[in-house]
Order: sequence, then structure tokens, then C-alpha cells
Amino acid sequence: MALRLGAIVDALGGELTGDRETCIERLAPLQTATDDALSFLSHPKYRKELAASHAACVIVSPAMREIAAARGAFIVTPDPYLYFAHLTQLWKKAHARPDPVQVHPSAVIHPEAVVHPSASIGALCVIERGARIGADTVLKSRVTVSEDCRIGARCLLHPGVVIGADGFGLAPHDGAWVKIEQLGAVRIGDDVEIGANTCIDRGALEDTVIEDGVKLDNLIQIGHNVRIGQHTAMAGCVGVAGSAVIGAHCTVGGGAIVLGHLTLADGVHISAATVVTRSILKPGQYTGVFPIDDNAAWEKNAATLKQLHGLRDRLKALEKKDDAG
Amino acid sequence: MALRLGAIVDALGGELTGDRETCIERLAPLQTATDDALSFLSHPKYRKELAASHAACVIVSPAMREIAAARGAFIVTPDPYLYFAHLTQLWKKAHARPDPVQVHPSAVIHPEAVVHPSASIGALCVIERGARIGADTVLKSRVTVSEDCRIGARCLLHPGVVIGADGFGLAPHDGAWVKIEQLGAVRIGDDVEIGANTCIDRGALEDTVIEDGVKLDNLIQIGHNVRIGQHTAMAGCVGVAGSAVIGAHCTVGGGAIVLGHLTLADGVHISAATVVTRSILKPGQYTGVFPIDDNAAWEKNAATLKQLHGLRDRLKALEKKDDAG
Amino acid sequence: MALRLGAIVDALGGELTGDRETCIERLAPLQTATDDALSFLSHPKYRKELAASHAACVIVSPAMREIAAARGAFIVTPDPYLYFAHLTQLWKKAHARPDPVQVHPSAVIHPEAVVHPSASIGALCVIERGARIGADTVLKSRVTVSEDCRIGARCLLHPGVVIGADGFGLAPHDGAWVKIEQLGAVRIGDDVEIGANTCIDRGALEDTVIEDGVKLDNLIQIGHNVRIGQHTAMAGCVGVAGSAVIGAHCTVGGGAIVLGHLTLADGVHISAATVVTRSILKPGQYTGVFPIDDNAAWEKNAATLKQLHGLRDRLKALEKKDDAG
Repeated sequence: MALRLGAIVDALGGELTGDRETCIERLAPLQTATDDALSFLSHPKYRKELAASHAACVIVSPAMREIAAARGAFIVTPDPYLYFAHLTQLWKKAHARPDPVQVHPSAVIHPEAVVHPSASIGALCVIERGARIGADTVLKSRVTVSEDCRIGARCLLHPGVVIGADGFGLAPHDGAWVKIEQLGAVRIGDDVEIGANTCIDRGALEDTVIEDGVKLDNLIQIGHNVRIGQHTAMAGCVGVAGSAVIGAHCTVGGGAIVLGHLTLADGVHISAATVVTRSILKPGQYTGVFPIDDNAAWEKNAATLKQLHGLRDRLKALEKKDDAG
Repeated sequence: MALRLGAIVDALGGELTGDRETCIERLAPLQTATDDALSFLSHPKYRKELAASHAACVIVSPAMREIAAARGAFIVTPDPYLYFAHLTQLWKKAHARPDPVQVHPSAVIHPEAVVHPSASIGALCVIERGARIGADTVLKSRVTVSEDCRIGARCLLHPGVVIGADGFGLAPHDGAWVKIEQLGAVRIGDDVEIGANTCIDRGALEDTVIEDGVKLDNLIQIGHNVRIGQHTAMAGCVGVAGSAVIGAHCTVGGGAIVLGHLTLADGVHISAATVVTRSILKPGQYTGVFPIDDNAAWEKNAATLKQLHGLRDRLKALEKKDDAG
Repeated sequence: MALRLGAIVDALGGELTGDRETCIERLAPLQTATDDALSFLSHPKYRKELAASHAACVIVSPAMREIAAARGAFIVTPDPYLYFAHLTQLWKKAHARPDPVQVHPSAVIHPEAVVHPSASIGALCVIERGARIGADTVLKSRVTVSEDCRIGARCLLHPGVVIGADGFGLAPHDGAWVKIEQLGAVRIGDDVEIGANTCIDRGALEDTVIEDGVKLDNLIQIGHNVRIGQHTAMAGCVGVAGSAVIGAHCTVGGGAIVLGHLTLADGVHISAATVVTRSILKPGQYTGVFPIDDNAAWEKNAATLKQLHGLRDRLKALEKKDDAG
């Protein structure tokens, strides 16, 4: 199941310096690569690891050509990380074990659901009435797609994903809650990946919309009526509350929370664990995280933080006196 | 499948000004409503959207009667949002597609479980020995109810919910952990809704208790021995640690964390992403969130925050000198 | 199904003062114990509850012997909490209802997976090609173990767990994301417990590794290439980003987030809801949480926090003037 270096550059491009016949048995990071492995240098800061690596061959950018040459075989390409991404795809394809069943017999698919013949539906998935699954889309095991929800082409949904559960809609009445039935659905574009146990709720009246190329990691909660723009990516454990509108090409770090009814412009980047409490209309990086410290130091600073506004007033008073003096 | 305005007010009340024969084809927000849609004004601040809406009819409060009248047909009711909630229920009922199967054949139900004949058990659910499911309760697909757990009447559990997994009970011993078997169960009242992939752990000795009318959103974790009072609602991604006792009529915002063994009084409202580190015995709104900022500003303020206690001391020293001077 | 006190101390040790023939019908906390219950005192601060308890017998440490004696029967043991843990195990074993089926017929197990004959596979689990499940390991219902992932002996995986979904690996290209196929797997040691709906991603090139004795609560996300050392425990809703290396004997509180590519030494304890943004090389307790306050006070302090760096500069300026004066 090895790939020769020649076959790799024939498939992916790049300029090979070294023996086209060399067999690559595995892909590996620089530090743990053995002499049958292909590795890559994603960032110049790892150049020491490059020099010390036992890899059979390394993928480098043009600027690293000389350092790589001093070591052995190498492939030059403008973007080694992108090249590596394509290489993993080539590798997976070459090593794929044939699995002819497209729809696992244990999946529960409603007769009024529409599954494209090229889609693959894993074990114990549930596809409800009126749902649609597009071409070449893959649902791994135990995915639920609820009534009338639509998944585009070439999507990948990991185990435990729930598409189209009811949004959290409640009207208060006499100390109890009256349910607002969720009459919308979920509409997911093409080339979307959704991580394990992530949930995307159906809309209250209109649809929750995930646009083309969006990538969601595991255990993310997307509330009803949310709209996420093209090619936005979110790391694990993010929560997006109802009716938030998130632009294209945004990134949201792990564990961040976006409150409801907010707007994030295109190109907004939210740091991990940040709480977005207001709309953000200008691209950029935004953060709000309490800095970690040893517990004793944190206790002192946290206690003082609860008097911060008072401290500001005392500082002001001193400044005033000082001015007067 | 349209409903006439006359049929709506006959069913739900409210005072209609307009043609009882008008056909309503959909429910829609004010901004996107077409001339076959019924919409509603939940808050006076949207009165501009009201004036501009193309909706066939709008639901308004008495105070909005004149503005509504200037536009076209309207229904007056004291609480338009509540009216809208009831309307979604009416709508869903009118549009329900008959689904006679109450227990999906793919569900795995232990012979010693007790499922009320009027309950509905979705595809690929697991109901273990000794579990009880009450009247008119609906389990959507892929819900697990573990041994001896009890769900009341008219509950709704969304896909992926896990009721009665073991609580996280461990005794430290010689650098390792000894499991504390979780001998309690989970007891859920009536009219409880539980969102997708939410988990409620069984108690260590006694039961974890969710009282009547509690509403939990998606991806929430409720630890063992927790007690949640009537009609409390929690948004997505909340975590409640073991043995916390939460009162009735509370709300907990998305992503908030409640530490273990704490007590929250009735009517406590926790803001999103707030960490509750102490008991709260007085009703009110409580918050603890680092304010979001552009990353550069955050970095400066976060760094200074780690010296805050020292700054306070320096301020004190200056004040003292000033007093002395 | 009762156990006599004599049988309990015969099995677990401890020095009984009281009647060996007394029947114990239940285990219960001190406050709610009835006169047929066995209870325990985990901490001297609960000595008042001890004195008032109606329990048939209590488990106490040597220091509590006199207080216990004044009340009735008791068992003395050096670590009552550990004794209680063993007691719950004894209790569960004594009350276990026989369930001869080791692999539930609804589980979907690939013919090229290897499941140890003593392992127990619950309803609607999915075990993919090349996966291995060790001796005496228990998978509750609806667990997915993906291709080539390995679970050791005596593990316990709760419902909804997903082992081996793809890590979140993406290379940016022309405003879109190119998938990095995840070619590694997940390797889980012996005696590991994994809570409901928790996800552990497969590695990009090498394996994600969970060492022996690790305990993970519910709804935890472990990213690709993470390594977690022996006997480390994490509470619910924790997120660990890719390539983090966490030492042995650590604890991570609920809702904490550990960023990617960080290292935590052995014996590091992270408080609940803390965000770990840098490596921690020294054992100890670390915290970073915004203190909760009533909402009005929080608003003032949070607003001032956004000017904190400026306040520091103003304080400095005053100090300088003061020094000069």
C-alpha cells in the first residue's frame, strides 16, 4: 500500500529533488518520522526539527530549499500545509477499503425522504419525512436528520449529529412556559462538515441556514433561525444562540458563546472561550477571556475586580485633588 | 392547508378587525411576511417593521391598535407573543401528517420497562429495564432512558438525549480513582422538554430530580443528585455540577456553569456564560462575563488584570500619603 | 436483597461496633437515612448531621468514633469515602439483575472488528472495521467506536459516546477550507470511563491517546492528537483542543477549555470554567474565572475593566508626580 514519490508529485504537483522510486509507507510529523515516511514543514520556526528529521522526504516552501537539501530528498511547493492536506486525501483514497453498501440496512429512512443515490448513509441513522440528502454526502453512524431538513452535496456529518431538533422557543405565561412550535427547518449548503454530536436546530418560522463550505467541529450548538455565512469555521463546544447572523469567512474558537439576535460581519474572528455580547460589524480578532493564574493570585485579583468601579472613582478623586493642588 | 382568520380567532380568541374569510398560508416575521401570511408584533420597538409589513394580518396588543389599523387587518390580544405561541400549536396540529405508529419498530424497549400506551417512542430509542414513560410523552429518535428512570406525562425528549447515565462519582485511592456505583435514578416530572444531546445523570444514592414544566435546551449537562425546580428554563450548553439545587422559575443563560453543591433560590436568573461559584439566595439577575474587546485592547487589559490587586494597594498608598499630606 | 452488617464487614473490612445481624435495606446520605439504611461521614464538618441521623449504621473515621458511638452502630475505617465507594460496588453486585446477553443483537459490529468475548456491547452501538474492544469492557447503548480505534480492558463507555470521529483539520485555500484527512486513530488504555455524549477525535497522522485510569465525564470534547496521562479526571463540558498534552493525575473542572498544542505537567489542577491559554509546567491549582455578581454591579465593573490599562497608566502618572513632589 506504499506510494512512490514519483506517483505523489505526478498526482499533486511540486518539484521533487530525490529518487522518484522511493517508497513512502506512511505520513508522519517531522519529529517521529521514520526513514519510510513523508513529512512536511508547515512553518519556518520548525526548521530545527526539519534538520533533525529521519523522514525519507519532506515537503517545504521555496525559502526552505537549502536547509532541506542539506538533509536529503524534498518536494518544493508554495504552500506545504495545503500540499499536505491534498496528500492526506490522496493517501486516504489509495488506502480506502472498498465498502460497496451506500445505505446501511440499519438506517431508518422515511419513505418520503429523498436520498441522492450517490450519498452514503451510515449505520443507525434516522432520516425523517421530507428530508433531503444531496449527492456524495456522507452521514456517518447515528446521525438524525429531522423532518423537511435539507443537506447539500459533498457534506460530511459525523456520528451523533442532530439536524433539525426543535429550537428553544417558549412564551412565558402564568409562571409556566408555552411552547412555540418550530415550523421552519434547517437548510445546509454544499461542502459542509459537521462534527460529532453537534446540534443544529430548526427555525421557528423560517429556516436555520448553514451556507456552503461551513465547517463545524464537535459538540456545537446552533440555535434556531441562525444563519452562518460561507466558509465560516467553528471549533468544538461553541454555542450560537437563536437568530444570530454570522458572516462569511469567520472563525469562532472553541467554547465561545454568541448571544442571540447579534450580527457578525464577514471576516470576524472570535477567540476561544470568548462571549460575544454585542454585534461586531468590523472584521478583526475579538477576545474576552479572564487570564488564567495560579489560584491564590486569581483569588486576590478576582476579589479586587468586584471593587474595580470604586477604585476608578478613587483614582479620579485623587487626580482631581492633585490637579487642584 | 390554509387557515382562515375567522377559524383562528374562533380557536384562540382575540378581536379581529378584518375579513374572517382571508386565507392564511403561512406564519412569518413582520419583515419577510408576504400578503398571505399572519405575523405578530412582540414588542413596541418593532412598530416601524409593523407599518412596513406586507402581512395579510398582524397580531398586536391593545396599545398598537391604531398603528395596526393604519396598515390593514389585525387581531388585538393582551399578549401577542403568547397568542403567537398558541397559534404555532394550532398551525402544527392543522398541518400534522398522520403517523399512526406510536412505538417505532427499531426502538429497543426492555420487557420490564413500562411505556404508557399513548406515549410515542421514536426510531432507535433505547428504554432500559424498569424505566417508565408517561402518558402523551414523545421521545424523538435515538433517545436513551436508562434503568429505573421515570419520565412524566406530556414530556418531549429530542434526539440524542441520555437520561440516567452514571453520575461522575469517584473516590481517590493510591493515585487512582475508585468508582462509586450510582445507585439512584432520574425522576422527571410532567411537561418537561429536553433538547438534543442533553444528558441528565442518575443520582449516586437518591434520584436526580427534574420538576414539572422544566425546559432544557440542547447539549446541557445535569450532574447527579441535582434538583431543578418547577418551570425553570436553561439555554444550550449549560453545565450543572452534582448536587446543585436550583429553584423554581429560574432561567440560566447559554453556556453558564453552576458548580456543585450550590443552592439557587427561586427566581434567580443567571446570564449567559456566567460561572456560578457560590449559592444565590436572593432572586435577581446575576452575571460574570469578561467583556469582549478587540484583541489588542483585551491583551493590555488582561495583562493589567493580573496585577489588579497590586494596583489597588498602590492606590491605597497614594491615598494615605495624600491624607497625611 | 438486603445485606447484613456482618456480611459487609466480612467483604470490605472495617471494625464494626453493633449487631452483625442488622439488615441494611439501602445506602443513604446521613440526612435522609431511615433506620434500615447504612450511611457514611465523609468529612468532620458533617458531624452534626451524623449525630442527628436515623441511619441503622454509619461509616466513620477513627477520629469520629466517639461521636458515632453516642448515636448507635458504626463501622470504623481509615477512609470512609473510599469504603463507601467499595460498598456501592458490593451493593450493585449483590443487586445485579442477570443479563446474559453480552452483545445486544441490535448492535452493528463490523466483521473485521475484534470484540473480546467478555466485553459487553449495548443496544444500537456501532463498532467499525478494525476497532478493538478489550476484556470486560462495557459499552452502554448507542456508542460509536470508529475504524481502527482501540479500547482497553475494564473500560466503561456511556450512551452516545463517539470515539474516533475525524479531527478538525483544515488547510485554508482561496477563502475556502481543504480537508486534512485524519489518518490516525484513538487508543484508549485500561480502566477508562467515558461519560455520555463525550467525543474523542482520531489523530491526524498519529493516534489520540487516553492512558490507563482516565475518567471523563459527559459532553467532553477531546481534539485530535491529544494525549491524556494516567488517572487524570475531567468534569463535564470540558473542551481540549488538538495536540494538547495533559499529564498524569491532573483534574480539570467542568466547562474548562484547554487550547491546542499546550502542555500540562503531571498534577496540574484546573478550576471549573477556566481557559488554559498557555502551557503549565508546575503542579498546582490554576484558575481564571470572572467573579459572578449581581448584574448591575457586574455592568459597572465590566465597563471599567475595558479601561483598566489606562487606569494603570493614570495611577503610574500620579505616583510619579507624587515622587517628584
